[in-house]
Amino acid sequence: MICGLHHVGIAVHNLDEAAGAYRALGLSVEKVETVEGEQVRVAFIPVGDTHIELLEPTGASSPVARFLEKRGPGVHHLCFVVDDVAQAMAQARAAGLLLLDETPRVGAGGSRVCFIHPKSTGGVLLELWQDDHA
Amino acid sequence: MICGLHHVGIAVHNLDEAAGAYRALGLSVEKVETVEGEQVRVAFIPVGDTHIELLEPTGASSPVARFLEKRGPGVHHLCFVVDDVAQAMAQARAAGLLLLDETPRVGAGGSRVCFIHPKSTGGVLLELWQDDHA
Repeated sequence: MICGLHHVGIAVHNLDEAAGAYRALGLSVEKVETVEGEQVRVAFIPVGDTHIELLEPTGASSPVARFLEKRGPGVHHLCFVVDDVAQAMAQARAAGLLLLDETPRVGAGGSRVCFIHPKSTGGVLLELWQDDHA
Repeated sequence: MICGLHHVGIAVHNLDEAAGAYRALGLSVEKVETVEGEQVRVAFIPVGDTHIELLEPTGASSPVARFLEKRGPGVHHLCFVVDDVAQAMAQARAAGLLLLDETPRVGAGGSRVCFIHPKSTGGVLLELWQDDHA
């Protein structure tokens, strides 16, 4: 049910500063957008068929702000592309994974997404992503 | 100079247990190998054009054992494919990134690799990977 890795989400204090290291390696920011629901500004950096997604909190109650406070900057989550997020959620739930969403929520680019708790995945917050055009 | 994301390295206590969550999402372990130099057993799980690399320490002095002790299981590093690791290292050094290797070391699958310190990349340990057949 997983087609690929859509992105690696990285919590950062400042998008422009954090993008510097990736620019130094020859990569470029493709687009920047704000995801209101998550209180983050997001910069997408294409790498092959996937992306680095830098996440800068826009408010103190943003989940990314809390992550930064607790753990400092670093990888926040991995996001897998799925064809059908509702079906993938049902399969994950049936397999005993702990979902953070009852129903899909709206992610970057108007995608439909769901998060899986790190407790049930060996310490990594996972996101399932269905493109809005899928 | 970067062609793609080769893998996301994830520190785990036990390869088989950790692979369970990815199996539940329909993914499969392709191969398991031991990297003596790093004191780790490694399981590669293909996802689209990249891989999840689960890392289980084989000794208490393994860098992955120290990571687990300090931070618990989770994403350990991101690894980018490069055509020429020596050239990529020179460019990264010139751009002010802090390399952990003076010269390339031997990684999984006989690759030639180099690590970049998280201090210079916004909190993420980065690996540059040149395939041994490149």
